[in-house]
Amino acid sequence: MTAEKLILDGNRVASDIKETLLGRINLLSEKRIVPCLATILVGDDPSSATYVRMKGNACKRLGIQSIRIDLPKNTSTSELIAAINKLNADPNVHGILLQHPVPNQIDERAAFEAISIEKDVDGVTTLGFAQNAFGFADFPSCTPAAIIAILDYYNIPIEGKHAVVIGRSPILGKPVSLMLLNKNATVTTCHSKTTNLEDVVRLGDIVVAAVGKPKFVQGDWIKPGAIVLDAGYNEGNIGDVDYDNCLKNASAITPVPAGVGPVTIAILLKHTVEAAEKLT
Amino acid sequence: MTAEKLILDGNRVASDIKETLLGRINLLSEKRIVPCLATILVGDDPSSATYVRMKGNACKRLGIQSIRIDLPKNTSTSELIAAINKLNADPNVHGILLQHPVPNQIDERAAFEAISIEKDVDGVTTLGFAQNAFGFADFPSCTPAAIIAILDYYNIPIEGKHAVVIGRSPILGKPVSLMLLNKNATVTTCHSKTTNLEDVVRLGDIVVAAVGKPKFVQGDWIKPGAIVLDAGYNEGNIGDVDYDNCLKNASAITPVPAGVGPVTIAILLKHTVEAAEKLT
Repeated sequence: MTAEKLILDGNRVASDIKETLLGRINLLSEKRIVPCLATILVGDDPSSATYVRMKGNACKRLGIQSIRIDLPKNTSTSELIAAINKLNADPNVHGILLQHPVPNQIDERAAFEAISIEKDVDGVTTLGFAQNAFGFADFPSCTPAAIIAILDYYNIPIEGKHAVVIGRSPILGKPVSLMLLNKNATVTTCHSKTTNLEDVVRLGDIVVAAVGKPKFVQGDWIKPGAIVLDAGYNEGNIGDVDYDNCLKNASAITPVPAGVGPVTIAILLKHTVEAAEKLT
Repeated sequence: MTAEKLILDGNRVASDIKETLLGRINLLSEKRIVPCLATILVGDDPSSATYVRMKGNACKRLGIQSIRIDLPKNTSTSELIAAINKLNADPNVHGILLQHPVPNQIDERAAFEAISIEKDVDGVTTLGFAQNAFGFADFPSCTPAAIIAILDYYNIPIEGKHAVVIGRSPILGKPVSLMLLNKNATVTTCHSKTTNLEDVVRLGDIVVAAVGKPKFVQGDWIKPGAIVLDAGYNEGNIGDVDYDNCLKNASAITPVPAGVGPVTIAILLKHTVEAAEKLT
């Protein structure tokens, strides 16, 4: 008997989220409000440009306005903050997304902090992070929120499960660890200094890969029956998980593409609509 | 051969911290600045009153001024926030500590948020929490910082170790988990919904008990050779750890009293001095 495998379909979860937004966008338009997301891209990193384009297209398809701000790669921190402040002050802009990563000369933390909390639709400010950590954020970071949304959509229980998160970045590993903790999982956070990583990952009933290394998580690291969520997005649309081999032990898994990625974008659109609704 | 046991002496660590403050307090006094900690106690909980008194006495012994604000137990959130704002505005007050817990009718989170970040010497604001989570807080929460200080004082390595934290409160379990993570431990956070808690605790090279239940952590939960830190402070000066039985397996352990408690107070004094120094 082969155990049934559940492929966690990010496109389906994303469609479900986006459908709930259509009526809300219509209601806003009756009040002459068009939700608007401003995306800032600094430099010419091709994959960053692709993500920004995908986000813009997703907005357009749903009737959300998108503004794209392109800044040269030698932009200074203060120039970037000036651009953010202009968007903060613009009453027609409801959400601001600064595409990560920014070039090295920029103090990314200072730039994130400049985003006003009402428009921080990706939960990148310290205030947004802490509100999420305490369980009452309006806008938790989109990728962590996407991971939770996928689990919820498929009614996968989180409470009492052991979740292992590989990665500890301020916009992914840390917030998703805290969100899973707030959902009553026991949470282990691993990283590059973790010893015996494979043994630690093997503890996971739920495994979240947020490493940024293609096919990093190996098939035999996965406990039989575990749920695997791959938040990786490496060049060539390759995840952080060795999908074919992890599929053997996992009971459910997100593919790349069409896993966490489209849900992240859907959450971003949802936050933008919610930011616009708060103004009405 | 019996393995050597190290009793982690909180009084010794606290003395070491306080000694480094004496010269700094003298330097401030040459500039006619006396560091000043304001402590707010709402209601008449006897153990809270004891902690507040201990903090006041510790200030006095070191030449730090302490102001004690006692508010009746039926104080409203807005009355408490008004009292905090008065302290925020007072240039002679450098640190503000709102004694936890506050009576039920008060929105504790709103009260904590009212403390200005420059005076948030116990790291209770969302901003202070997030700065600590990202590793650049001026004033991390005192008990978590005390736990790290004890490990550092005894040169106990953290990097690459598996730390298990039992508890997930915003001022203890969560921040200490994030601080250990920033010190390159692999961190597992457990709580009341954790299944097989004993097995999870047994993973820990470092175990932090922050539960609030007397003698909760049992001796056979401790992996042989583990380091045990007891942040509990239950009635009758009893820790969260069954000390005598945990001592058998642990290689190092904090007692209660004279473990984490005095170091927490020393860190609070240190933060108050640092808050005063920032003004000069």
